[in-house]
Amino acid sequence: MHLGLVGLGKMGGNMRDRLRAAGHHVTGYDRNPEVTDVASLEDLVAAFDAEERTVVWVMVPAGEITEAVITELAGLLSAGDVIIDGGNSKYVDDLRRAEQLSASGIQYVDAGVSGGIWGKENGYGLMVGGADDVIDSLMPIFDDLRPDGPRNEGFVHAGPVGAGHYAKMVHNGIEYGVMQAYAEGYEILAAKDELITDVGAIFEAWQRGTVVRSWLLELLVKALNEDPDLDDIRGYVADSGEGRWTVEEAIQRAVPAPVISAALFARFDSRQEDSPAMKAVAALRNQFGGHATKPSADG
Amino acid sequence: MHLGLVGLGKMGGNMRDRLRAAGHHVTGYDRNPEVTDVASLEDLVAAFDAEERTVVWVMVPAGEITEAVITELAGLLSAGDVIIDGGNSKYVDDLRRAEQLSASGIQYVDAGVSGGIWGKENGYGLMVGGADDVIDSLMPIFDDLRPDGPRNEGFVHAGPVGAGHYAKMVHNGIEYGVMQAYAEGYEILAAKDELITDVGAIFEAWQRGTVVRSWLLELLVKALNEDPDLDDIRGYVADSGEGRWTVEEAIQRAVPAPVISAALFARFDSRQEDSPAMKAVAALRNQFGGHATKPSADG
Amino acid sequence: MHLGLVGLGKMGGNMRDRLRAAGHHVTGYDRNPEVTDVASLEDLVAAFDAEERTVVWVMVPAGEITEAVITELAGLLSAGDVIIDGGNSKYVDDLRRAEQLSASGIQYVDAGVSGGIWGKENGYGLMVGGADDVIDSLMPIFDDLRPDGPRNEGFVHAGPVGAGHYAKMVHNGIEYGVMQAYAEGYEILAAKDELITDVGAIFEAWQRGTVVRSWLLELLVKALNEDPDLDDIRGYVADSGEGRWTVEEAIQRAVPAPVISAALFARFDSRQEDSPAMKAVAALRNQFGGHATKPSADG
Amino acid sequence: MHLGLVGLGKMGGNMRDRLRAAGHHVTGYDRNPEVTDVASLEDLVAAFDAEERTVVWVMVPAGEITEAVITELAGLLSAGDVIIDGGNSKYVDDLRRAEQLSASGIQYVDAGVSGGIWGKENGYGLMVGGADDVIDSLMPIFDDLRPDGPRNEGFVHAGPVGAGHYAKMVHNGIEYGVMQAYAEGYEILAAKDELITDVGAIFEAWQRGTVVRSWLLELLVKALNEDPDLDDIRGYVADSGEGRWTVEEAIQRAVPAPVISAALFARFDSRQEDSPAMKAVAALRNQFGGHATKPSADG
Repeated sequence: MHLGLVGLGKMGGNMRDRLRAAGHHVTGYDRNPEVTDVASLEDLVAAFDAEERTVVWVMVPAGEITEAVITELAGLLSAGDVIIDGGNSKYVDDLRRAEQLSASGIQYVDAGVSGGIWGKENGYGLMVGGADDVIDSLMPIFDDLRPDGPRNEGFVHAGPVGAGHYAKMVHNGIEYGVMQAYAEGYEILAAKDELITDVGAIFEAWQRGTVVRSWLLELLVKALNEDPDLDDIRGYVADSGEGRWTVEEAIQRAVPAPVISAALFARFDSRQEDSPAMKAVAALRNQFGGHATKPSADG
Repeated sequence: MHLGLVGLGKMGGNMRDRLRAAGHHVTGYDRNPEVTDVASLEDLVAAFDAEERTVVWVMVPAGEITEAVITELAGLLSAGDVIIDGGNSKYVDDLRRAEQLSASGIQYVDAGVSGGIWGKENGYGLMVGGADDVIDSLMPIFDDLRPDGPRNEGFVHAGPVGAGHYAKMVHNGIEYGVMQAYAEGYEILAAKDELITDVGAIFEAWQRGTVVRSWLLELLVKALNEDPDLDDIRGYVADSGEGRWTVEEAIQRAVPAPVISAALFARFDSRQEDSPAMKAVAALRNQFGGHATKPSADG
Repeated sequence: MHLGLVGLGKMGGNMRDRLRAAGHHVTGYDRNPEVTDVASLEDLVAAFDAEERTVVWVMVPAGEITEAVITELAGLLSAGDVIIDGGNSKYVDDLRRAEQLSASGIQYVDAGVSGGIWGKENGYGLMVGGADDVIDSLMPIFDDLRPDGPRNEGFVHAGPVGAGHYAKMVHNGIEYGVMQAYAEGYEILAAKDELITDVGAIFEAWQRGTVVRSWLLELLVKALNEDPDLDDIRGYVADSGEGRWTVEEAIQRAVPAPVISAALFARFDSRQEDSPAMKAVAALRNQFGGHATKPSADG
Repeated sequence: MHLGLVGLGKMGGNMRDRLRAAGHHVTGYDRNPEVTDVASLEDLVAAFDAEERTVVWVMVPAGEITEAVITELAGLLSAGDVIIDGGNSKYVDDLRRAEQLSASGIQYVDAGVSGGIWGKENGYGLMVGGADDVIDSLMPIFDDLRPDGPRNEGFVHAGPVGAGHYAKMVHNGIEYGVMQAYAEGYEILAAKDELITDVGAIFEAWQRGTVVRSWLLELLVKALNEDPDLDDIRGYVADSGEGRWTVEEAIQRAVPAPVISAALFARFDSRQEDSPAMKAVAALRNQFGGHATKPSADG
């Protein structure tokens, strides 16, 4: 199948390779001239035959960049063409875009893509949202992107437009919680150094037979093999939005989410040089108890 | 190798089967006459040849029952014999017992065993603590209990006595957090029923290629296949101690453990008919705002 | 000063009394004919002299009702008139409304009002947002609504439109956390009944000299005096939005808010008959460990 | 009444002043020769007349120091004498000590004392545990230490030995949660600087009429007046044990304590140069997503 692919970074570049290896015709576009196949989005669309349906997979950072690409594509495509947003967009943006594009008959599909840099080799976990007939027509692409094995274990048509990114959002929220659980366990073990001498060996031994075995555990083993005490890494963790949205959705639906929110707040904490809240607590203890405070780092 | 095995329930019974299938000579004892091989602990010890080292694996509920069995065994064994506690004992109990038994030359090993009812088929993840030479001498047993594959991926000699149960304790603490992360994600998806129609299909699709794939995820898929909306199950969750101890250890070492503690508290919550704390909050809102309260269920 | 007051429930009715007692001319409107002074909003506006600036304080439930009242008022008022929203509106709604009303020259003020049913007697804590000159012109009203004592200890002009409700939102978020802290302490004391026999007496004794003394503590003492074991009250707690918004704001600004969010989630929990998340955890434990589950209440 | 007082620091020194001002005869001992009245504990005990009951209030740091003082006193006192531990001891230590001292007929009382450096002026909130007749005999002291007003609003005989410190422990656990709630609110307001320009003025205005008014709030206002942006204070917060014990007690009784534990963990966080847990999360994100990590500060 012929697929236009916008964004050839870590994710998009690997997806192009995987799809080409499977025999698809991929026309890729990226601002980086060293990796792009065509010079512009206009050229990418022009690469499709006139009688051919144009299908473009957008794989660029969510937010303004995705928005700009889709807006430009909307001006180049016509009724029956398809835009697939494979980034981590917020599902409400999907709903809006699908509505806007429907005016000109352009189909919209949202695809949550999991698997990171390992997807090229292992296949990508896919969660998609959109109309049944459109999704059906794209299965040749989805089937070659997803991992080997039964289709339903690596791909889901989660519902109408928005459902794919909603499922991916929750996937990432869960991911935050699971990672934090391992991380807390790591710190507790590492703090017990009079009894536990090789924390890495314990994580290594959890890979088979245990209840906590998982792919993330295997990755942590890999990281600990490379840097046993994680000496080279600062405990500074970014977040890209899906964790925040997951908690916001939980709040809007009155669903308790103590674990996912705790994992999110731990990331916020990790990025603070100093905590205004804890300044206030230190100030309070000083006021009522005369407990000494520490001078501010920049004070 | 000849092994005495005390406790032939879900865990011990399966372990006897697995070890016998591997060619070991297992003498099992259980209070239940239908499953036991011998009539008493005395008989179990007598089943060993005089010149043979007696090795007894205790696989009974942690706490009083384990304590009683080990105390009785201590009176039956002699210098050089070995007691392995395979239950979920608190590591400080291991330290105490090893000290007590050392007076009569009895060796003590603590073994954390993970894998649940699946261990018979898959093998058990093992984390053990004890003296090097004792552990070495028991490797034939450990190697046939653990899963196939490299030894270090399903077995760890985590350190001296206590280290095995300490590692298992943290394993279970992590397990609480990981389970709660999936569970919160499940509830958030289920609450979005105007967009997401088949939550089970999404979990099913996360089994390959995604970042959150794990054995626990596979089990949740299995559970959702059996009971798609979990209609037959009440949200009532017991805890058996290791999660509590993990948080207590974190506190004693000033390690933040927001996720594991949140998962623990969610279990406590799940078992309360009504919450005294939330009664107090309701009472407060009534006092300052005149907000109506609901009558107590038993009021 | 002449003030129109829309909404004469627990809050608005008391405010009318307090303002009249201070000598203001209050024209009140409520849908309830037993408490209203005039028959309609139209009549309320007509009650102002032609040359007089019309000032209307809206004190109805935030959301649709407030929106409807303000929309209707907008059609009745003219340039120079003032609408004060005293409910718990979301600050973004203030920004939008002020913008819309500015087209016809109507001034908008957002007023966060704290103190509940006690405000009639004690005065109301006020946090207001709006233009300096408008706020200044309303000080006679604010000064008689706020508690006795220095103005800056019971009133703040927190900033431009939106700042009043923003401050009130955070006030309520803090309130959630403070209430939950007392409530957890209450439950911990109550659970220790072999040592602590009179929990209420302890809270009573905390009213003077201690670090935790507060007005909320005094209210809890009052509640415990009326119902020592809170036997008549169910632990069911509503939330009216400001706690949710506080956490959402924290998330949008990457501020860790573990305490306020925990207090919010405890309220969500308190309203669930059964927890879908804990059903999932129970199902998981059953799958891996064969742990029995409890039948669903409605199963 | 004649009282021996051991420990004349911030707390003990002030208590001596307050008791003397009320007409009591206080013999103080401190290792610091500049403040002590006598040269040794022996001298302190000798300062009591032979026929007089010796009553010694111990006001030194909980733990080893308190333990050493009480052990030494035990050797100097005789049947009928009284030791009052006014520090923040763990209640289980009270139970043990009372049992030990009862062998020689020495009475033991545990007194939780709240109010910090303000107690000298305002009086101290007191929570005491011990036998009825002993407590009754000490009321002259308690009545002059506690704040003015009704006795039951600043003093409680919470139960038998241990109950006083148990109540104080929970008081401090609540204190952690309340402080953290204010602190999170402070940070959320401070982060909204495009709308909220004077956070301190808002806290100031919350002192009268609002639901969140409290003594701690007043202290925060004081702190913000002294240092409006808390620029001079680092967000580094110690903990002295009672918060930890409160959470441990909650865990042992299966009481959910999400707010108090979150406040405790925030303190732990505040003292970490770098977080091992967040290193692990950063390492994981790098492994699956190729997300760049930051170099360790000391890497």
